[in-house]
Amino acid sequence: MEDNLELIKSIAKTSPSKIVLLVIDGLGGLPDPETGKTELETANTPNLDKLATKGVCGLGDPVGLGITPGSAPGHLALFGYNPVSFSIGRGVLEALGIDFNLQSDDVAARGNFCSVDEMGLVTDRRAGRISTEKCIELCQLLDGVAIEGIKIFVCPVREHRFIVVFRGDGLTTNISDSDPQQTGVAPMIITAQSPEASRMAGIANQFIAQAKTTLAEHHPANMVLLRGFSTQPHFPTMGETYKLKPAAIAGYPMYRGLAKLVGMQVLETGTTIEDEFTTLEQNYANYDFFFIHIKGTDSAGEDGNFNQKVRIIEQVDKALPDLTSLKPDVIVVTGDHSTPALLKGHSWHPVPVLLYSKWCRSDKVSEFSESACISGGLGRFSATQIIPLAMANALKLNKFSA
Amino acid sequence: MEDNLELIKSIAKTSPSKIVLLVIDGLGGLPDPETGKTELETANTPNLDKLATKGVCGLGDPVGLGITPGSAPGHLALFGYNPVSFSIGRGVLEALGIDFNLQSDDVAARGNFCSVDEMGLVTDRRAGRISTEKCIELCQLLDGVAIEGIKIFVCPVREHRFIVVFRGDGLTTNISDSDPQQTGVAPMIITAQSPEASRMAGIANQFIAQAKTTLAEHHPANMVLLRGFSTQPHFPTMGETYKLKPAAIAGYPMYRGLAKLVGMQVLETGTTIEDEFTTLEQNYANYDFFFIHIKGTDSAGEDGNFNQKVRIIEQVDKALPDLTSLKPDVIVVTGDHSTPALLKGHSWHPVPVLLYSKWCRSDKVSEFSESACISGGLGRFSATQIIPLAMANALKLNKFSA
Repeated sequence: MEDNLELIKSIAKTSPSKIVLLVIDGLGGLPDPETGKTELETANTPNLDKLATKGVCGLGDPVGLGITPGSAPGHLALFGYNPVSFSIGRGVLEALGIDFNLQSDDVAARGNFCSVDEMGLVTDRRAGRISTEKCIELCQLLDGVAIEGIKIFVCPVREHRFIVVFRGDGLTTNISDSDPQQTGVAPMIITAQSPEASRMAGIANQFIAQAKTTLAEHHPANMVLLRGFSTQPHFPTMGETYKLKPAAIAGYPMYRGLAKLVGMQVLETGTTIEDEFTTLEQNYANYDFFFIHIKGTDSAGEDGNFNQKVRIIEQVDKALPDLTSLKPDVIVVTGDHSTPALLKGHSWHPVPVLLYSKWCRSDKVSEFSESACISGGLGRFSATQIIPLAMANALKLNKFSA
Repeated sequence: MEDNLELIKSIAKTSPSKIVLLVIDGLGGLPDPETGKTELETANTPNLDKLATKGVCGLGDPVGLGITPGSAPGHLALFGYNPVSFSIGRGVLEALGIDFNLQSDDVAARGNFCSVDEMGLVTDRRAGRISTEKCIELCQLLDGVAIEGIKIFVCPVREHRFIVVFRGDGLTTNISDSDPQQTGVAPMIITAQSPEASRMAGIANQFIAQAKTTLAEHHPANMVLLRGFSTQPHFPTMGETYKLKPAAIAGYPMYRGLAKLVGMQVLETGTTIEDEFTTLEQNYANYDFFFIHIKGTDSAGEDGNFNQKVRIIEQVDKALPDLTSLKPDVIVVTGDHSTPALLKGHSWHPVPVLLYSKWCRSDKVSEFSESACISGGLGRFSATQIIPLAMANALKLNKFSA
């Protein structure tokens, strides 16, 4: 796949044409056993159906058949980056999720507040899932210390989850986790996995020792577990690779963070679909690629709220004319993965993809749905090919060889 | 893909069964906005439709979704060779295109006649696209010189395009281009990219210096630009890899040249479809694989001549009984890429594929067309898999492992 990026890079060209990638998070679903229809099939979507009629449809697999993607791999695939080769450390992912302004050499780790007994053995890796309020309070106790000249930030995420960020010169990530991933044992001593990492291991162990002391009287959250020490990866940007000038319109930090990692300009926007489409219109002249992220569908799916997911899809459909009236040369509507309300979580099911352009070679699909997309002209394909396909339809790719 | 070739090689076996691969160049198209039908859908093709009814259909991608293939990668894919790994240098490609009889160690480069001003800066990389007659005349002025014992051939291609072939001992290709790919700058001095290439760089620079002198009074074609220095690649032959005895029937040099590169025997033939099918009949007993190339569809597509492309497809259909009456065990009809008349050039759209054999497990497709092939039993797949599929249908592949 890196090879494919090299191939795309070698044939990419700039042009005034514009591409809009509308990502309806967790779009794909599973049928309600009573109606036999998925969330997307239940929703009344005249505008999406009209676009599907004019466009070409298919089913995309973000990672591979049977693989349930997290948000990061799901989006990296949509941006054309093989999510298996382009990985993001756990600490960095959590930092992106809370909009922490990571600097280039910062080392971030995912933290859990946990419970240990008087022998120091872990009894609960999640400290009874303490409240987010409690998490915020405890993070304040740990935040802002310095060890050997290294500044340490501790920021709450949700419930027992937090991040630790180490900032200073000469840090590395090549150290082991302290999280033993099981109870009944002690947290693990962090060890250097290469000689130059010994100082970093020492700093992390000192932080943990200090945290243990600070938290001693805060049972059930009387200890911390750290894992996924990582720095921000340096991915080739979409500008370098595709010669695009890309912008991201997303209300949630994680997606803004992922967009930044591939070099998109993150635009200020609001939290509603209408806000996002207004931001698109206001910035339409200044970029040739727009990633727009709709979060509500995934949240509703995660909550198991079938009807709420249907409602959000209908809201997107209702707002769609604000997007199509701008007449982008290429419009892609898809999701980063499926989130069936029945499964209350992400799933491995392929995701409906709709591509419209003047040159798309339309198929007979006249409804944007999982079952109709099966017979679409795009067939079933890797979601990493959406960007090359969109660029081809925008006439932004030269011929490969003679 | 090289891995896949190794797999096929390990299970290939010889048998008396015969495979015919009929390549209708640039077969895939886009619908006429008035009728909603592509060239193939507009053409009256009772024989192809009958074969589609008995056979199994699908859509093939020569390189990947969104990638528009040149003729060389399009054909290499059809011959089962991954066109990204098996690349052919630009100089060699041009030489194949004019039937230049390249010898094994010849170094070929693509040349442009260009215009330079009195400062020596390039003002037009194509010398105002001089006529082919002028190109022939200028090539005669440059042809046949020798530098340091190296014989140099200069042969016209078309308009401003020509090839230079260097023949002699100790030549290498590891040198840079002189074509700066932009105007307003001087042609670049060719440099060695490894120590042993310095002699070759010197010879190329001397050739360019002599050409500059010779062309001084021939404005707008008063200089040359060279690029893509390359030797004929050594690909594994279809005989070695597939244990086939393959023959090529093609009226145009480029396709004969590509067939030679994968070890096909190139048969003498005429320029019409009927000529080619007669050649097939005359040589039918002597080979077990035939590649037949129909050029007219691609030329019509490149010219934007929708109706002419329709007519050529109808000619192929009319002549088809001459092929089917030979009763090949396997017949594949497809293209090397799409060339929609509406785009006046090659495109990225997948190509209809029809495979007929006694063992093909037929689908419900009863019409050979882009839209019908979407629902075909072959699905959408990489065109590099056509040869293994054809061999399997010819019972020329053993079981893989036990």
